[in-house]
Amino acid sequence: MNCIFCKIAEKSIFKEIVFENEGFMAFNDIHPKAPQHVLIIPKAHIASVKELDEEGEKMAGRMIGIARRIAEKVGMAGYKLIFNVGPEAGQTVEHLHLHCIGGWESPPAKVEV
Amino acid sequence: MNCIFCKIAEKSIFKEIVFENEGFMAFNDIHPKAPQHVLIIPKAHIASVKELDEEGEKMAGRMIGIARRIAEKVGMAGYKLIFNVGPEAGQTVEHLHLHCIGGWESPPAKVEV
Repeated sequence: MNCIFCKIAEKSIFKEIVFENEGFMAFNDIHPKAPQHVLIIPKAHIASVKELDEEGEKMAGRMIGIARRIAEKVGMAGYKLIFNVGPEAGQTVEHLHLHCIGGWESPPAKVEV
Repeated sequence: MNCIFCKIAEKSIFKEIVFENEGFMAFNDIHPKAPQHVLIIPKAHIASVKELDEEGEKMAGRMIGIARRIAEKVGMAGYKLIFNVGPEAGQTVEHLHLHCIGGWESPPAKVEV
């Protein structure tokens, strides 16, 4: 399988890691849409929110919690947490990921994600 | 407390309900940012993602699951799931809510949420 996020998770592609535990990893988006733009992924390959069963929903909840803690740690006053689901909604990598974006000096008028 | 989403949850303000179970409710956003724009809320008052403890993270996961099922039911091909956290990020009602937006004919260039 040729999944870029799996390769980051298994460290065959090097990325600076913002957060890591047994099941999850976080790193900065290569094309930031805001002053701060972190991606949180599960290490296991799951294509998108569409694939989440009950256990997967708990995983999504844990990703929300990780994002909250990262946002606090890096000092984001407010932030947006975004799952893009499917290419029709702008999901460009078919490995579940949560965008955590913030760090604006004033509230954003528009954010493209 | 003067929370509009609590009033919707307790049905002292009438809103057409898209989904309801014991703990959650969903209804259409009054100012839709896309052809389809549903809000999912917990009935219990929680201000934002910032307030979520471990149990609250599970609740957020369930909200993701509810959004997924609503999106499937109403036939959204792709969709964005968004928590705005804090007024700095565009959170306008201080009661946790998940935006589920989609229904575009072609992928959106920008979505303001």
